Amino acid sequence: MVSPRLIVDTGVLRNNIEIMQEAANTAGVALRPHIKAHKNAEIMRFQLIAGASGITVSKLGEAEVMAEAGATDIFIAYQLIGEDKYCRLAKLRQSARIAVAVDNTEHCRALDAATPHDKPLDVLIEVDSGLSRCGVLPQDVLGLAREILTLSKLSFRGIFTHAGHVYGVSAQDVARIGTEEALLMVACADQLRSQGIAVDVVSTGSTPTALHNLKVNGITEIRPGNYVFNDAIQVGLGVVDESRCALFVEATVISAPSATRVVIDAGSKVFGLDKGAHGMSVVTGFGRVLGWPELIIERLSEEHGIITYTGHGPTLGQKLTIIPNHACVAVNLADRIVSIPGEVSWAISARGRVD
Amino acid sequence: MVSPRLIVDTGVLRNNIEIMQEAANTAGVALRPHIKAHKNAEIMRFQLIAGASGITVSKLGEAEVMAEAGATDIFIAYQLIGEDKYCRLAKLRQSARIAVAVDNTEHCRALDAATPHDKPLDVLIEVDSGLSRCGVLPQDVLGLAREILTLSKLSFRGIFTHAGHVYGVSAQDVARIGTEEALLMVACADQLRSQGIAVDVVSTGSTPTALHNLKVNGITEIRPGNYVFNDAIQVGLGVVDESRCALFVEATVISAPSATRVVIDAGSKVFGLDKGAHGMSVVTGFGRVLGWPELIIERLSEEHGIITYTGHGPTLGQKLTIIPNHACVAVNLADRIVSIPGEVSWAISARGRVD
Repeated sequence: MVSPRLIVDTGVLRNNIEIMQEAANTAGVALRPHIKAHKNAEIMRFQLIAGASGITVSKLGEAEVMAEAGATDIFIAYQLIGEDKYCRLAKLRQSARIAVAVDNTEHCRALDAATPHDKPLDVLIEVDSGLSRCGVLPQDVLGLAREILTLSKLSFRGIFTHAGHVYGVSAQDVARIGTEEALLMVACADQLRSQGIAVDVVSTGSTPTALHNLKVNGITEIRPGNYVFNDAIQVGLGVVDESRCALFVEATVISAPSATRVVIDAGSKVFGLDKGAHGMSVVTGFGRVLGWPELIIERLSEEHGIITYTGHGPTLGQKLTIIPNHACVAVNLADRIVSIPGEVSWAISARGRVD
Repeated sequence: MVSPRLIVDTGVLRNNIEIMQEAANTAGVALRPHIKAHKNAEIMRFQLIAGASGITVSKLGEAEVMAEAGATDIFIAYQLIGEDKYCRLAKLRQSARIAVAVDNTEHCRALDAATPHDKPLDVLIEVDSGLSRCGVLPQDVLGLAREILTLSKLSFRGIFTHAGHVYGVSAQDVARIGTEEALLMVACADQLRSQGIAVDVVSTGSTPTALHNLKVNGITEIRPGNYVFNDAIQVGLGVVDESRCALFVEATVISAPSATRVVIDAGSKVFGLDKGAHGMSVVTGFGRVLGWPELIIERLSEEHGIITYTGHGPTLGQKLTIIPNHACVAVNLADRIVSIPGEVSWAISARGRVD
């Protein structure tokens, strides 16, 4: 067996996909999963077959790979800036329906200037619902929407947000953040409609907040990504338990230098260094070792994981199966993942496409 | 211009390579650079042409790629465990001279059993000089060396260490750690020799400690890696100043949502999340923005870098050039780096080879 390697439990994966799709269907809301979580054509196809309305990506590079793999309806939840990006966007629009994110007047004008007269571009305004990353504040949505309506080649489709600050709260606050996110977006949409502006899409979503978003009337779409795998941060936030985790690092104990420490052959170049926004309070160490709750992956260097414990520890050469803290970054560090059962190797076809 | 992208200043790179080689030559010590820092065949060739005695790698996968690219003398500074690894090692030994790390009796026996009678395998004992990762404690080196001498197919070549705990100290302690590391290794070698055991190789090395190691008589080899690039952590430790940094992330401002915040198109999937073992005390944020000392890359999500500032900030669409905190992990996240000057694209040929 190659060690270390990433494996995906396809039974758990498909179950996760079905549970989220079923919840969206029941609420009458579209599910447009974010494929940055897996960057894999196979998993995208499972999502589309299950009933996803299309996909969400961050980067043009991801969109290019997924369009090539068969995606025909893609929301680029990212601000595209620069002539090279606009050239690539024009080419991409030949094979798929594309909508893009905007959050700035100047940006909207540049995008409008780059769009052909005969093929208006769908845009969605990003709303900052508390993450303080991109996006306009709720009080500025109307102004930007009015600006877009003056631009002849942009077609205003709606509004979206990502309540990523949910990763900085405690488990008991997840439901509150999810509800607030959705209520805020519905209020923004209502304000636009009261001014006569059509709002087709009211889109929210992260894995922790998605099911809470669905309880609020007026949301039209959710965009979770991580839910296909789940990971130790989701477990730490109380979103799922270990049985719902589908992605694992398989690693080997390559050194047992003391009675309280072993070293595995997977470090930050396998796991990444994510510890959640709360650091030690949401997760302990850098992953959950299946069947060994007392082991702590205390430190990572690039090629080593240092595990400490008291009492009985694993032995030299032993294989360990570990739920990573952040599945999305672990996948992006690997060229391939291997399915269990089946041992089929899947290419992470959009790996590294950050452009 | 593709954004984000990694660029390497080949003038600074070659200068860094020459400075380290010259220092090793002056001290009469071999330089065996660790290629995990760059995973790139082109840079390895620069190092060999400058006078490197061979290369160091962590993983068999890295050794396979570099042997293919022309390396003929490789030290795998890593414990190889498992029959699949031993098969690959046997194949690799057909094209290159290989030495491997050991730190455990049981491991030595397994390696001996997997080695053919007619081709003994060079091994070096890893000594824990304070990092508390792999390696035997100094008092246990003699016992393990004696065990190796009883194994007919292992050839004991010497001892090595990596004082990685230097990344957890303050700038003023770097020289002390480098000196202690070297003195300890020379003392270990002397103890073995006093028992009649030949020790050809006494090997130390990290970029912060390398020049300090060279001041101690008895060291035969240094193995720094990061020195080809240097990065914000090296600057934070006082090892070099910004002018010696050769690797940069070029990123674009894609959102300017407030008067104190802009967002760039490079996040943890470009930079990694390394902040040094001291966190905020060695580096501030996730990189140094060239020409903008007042900008702080405060947070990274996967595809976004959130920059905060007071006063004058960059504008939408502006390109920023950033020294990453940890060059080695940034390179491993990219498929290619682009040379300046020249705009030649170099493949990170061992990227992701963690196996």
